[in-house]
Amino acid sequence: MVYSKRIQVATSGRSDLVNISAEVEAAVGESGVSEGIALIFTMHTTTGLFLNEAESGLLDDIEKALEATVPRGGSYLHNRVDNNAPSHIQSILLGASLAIPVEDGSLLLGTWQSVFLAERDGPRRRTVHIKVVGE
Amino acid sequence: MVYSKRIQVATSGRSDLVNISAEVEAAVGESGVSEGIALIFTMHTTTGLFLNEAESGLLDDIEKALEATVPRGGSYLHNRVDNNAPSHIQSILLGASLAIPVEDGSLLLGTWQSVFLAERDGPRRRTVHIKVVGE
Amino acid sequence: MVYSKRIQVATSGRSDLVNISAEVEAAVGESGVSEGIALIFTMHTTTGLFLNEAESGLLDDIEKALEATVPRGGSYLHNRVDNNAPSHIQSILLGASLAIPVEDGSLLLGTWQSVFLAERDGPRRRTVHIKVVGE
Repeated sequence: MVYSKRIQVATSGRSDLVNISAEVEAAVGESGVSEGIALIFTMHTTTGLFLNEAESGLLDDIEKALEATVPRGGSYLHNRVDNNAPSHIQSILLGASLAIPVEDGSLLLGTWQSVFLAERDGPRRRTVHIKVVGE
Repeated sequence: MVYSKRIQVATSGRSDLVNISAEVEAAVGESGVSEGIALIFTMHTTTGLFLNEAESGLLDDIEKALEATVPRGGSYLHNRVDNNAPSHIQSILLGASLAIPVEDGSLLLGTWQSVFLAERDGPRRRTVHIKVVGE
Repeated sequence: MVYSKRIQVATSGRSDLVNISAEVEAAVGESGVSEGIALIFTMHTTTGLFLNEAESGLLDDIEKALEATVPRGGSYLHNRVDNNAPSHIQSILLGASLAIPVEDGSLLLGTWQSVFLAERDGPRRRTVHIKVVGE
């Protein structure tokens, strides 16, 4: 059994960390899959996906750590084409896909795990694809 | 065909890199799946998963690189709630899930690849979920 | 339905970012899978995989960012065994596997997304495994 859905996510500001857990959970519910794998996939090169805790101070810390690891102020060749090289590289460090187990018809997330889309070059309207495979 | 198993991993020290290859391989054997995908998933926000070489010097180097990239001594807002912001951020850089091919009823790992759970806020007892999908 | 294929990738220089999108797309076409998941997996501990834009300036920027985050000139215990500790650690930050949705018999990639193998300890001949699961 394979179920597919695309969701649209509106992001705010140049960078943003958006909790999309409810939308992903809804797609899993609609899929009718009881046991399997949910693949969450962002179709962009300046966004990433990650799982972590939805605590506002931590989200600020994650932002600062991404900016410190790949600083906006550095010298980048890609900035001659489009002024967003660090947005691309921060996205690569996070990754474009997440695979999460589906059990009893729900996402198998730990107590503190939420699904986040990391915007690195917004604000924009982003497309996230969800595919649920199983039985 | 979908097979699920949870394993418990006891970690030592604040940070630890634990080779869980044998446990994951055993789960794949029990699954009865001959060809497919094994998803390894940690249900925590201060652990990550990675594949690499089980050489003790390299494991020390990986530890030091994680600590250098997201230093414990920095200033973090989340540390007002829980003194472990770098544990969360290091875990995000590693990621919470690994997907590995299953072939001829075994994990398809290269010669030097082992599966590691990276503890960033231990010591604790951690739950890792393994899901095997295929035929 | 499960389809498997291995491809060989010849890399150039100590580090190299090789666009393997055409090879991965060909494997998906051969699989006969219309809807599902493509798993791309590197069987090595000094290579990684990522999705991003195939712009030459950006590829140079990605190279420099990986080298800045895990510098070659640092002090590493693993270098007593094999002079490539940063190659391993850079590979861990990228990850060894990518999962991409398959839709209408093709990889579901965004406009700017290409699949890259990141060589961190070449030049070598590398094996990438592709597994397509679905219906």
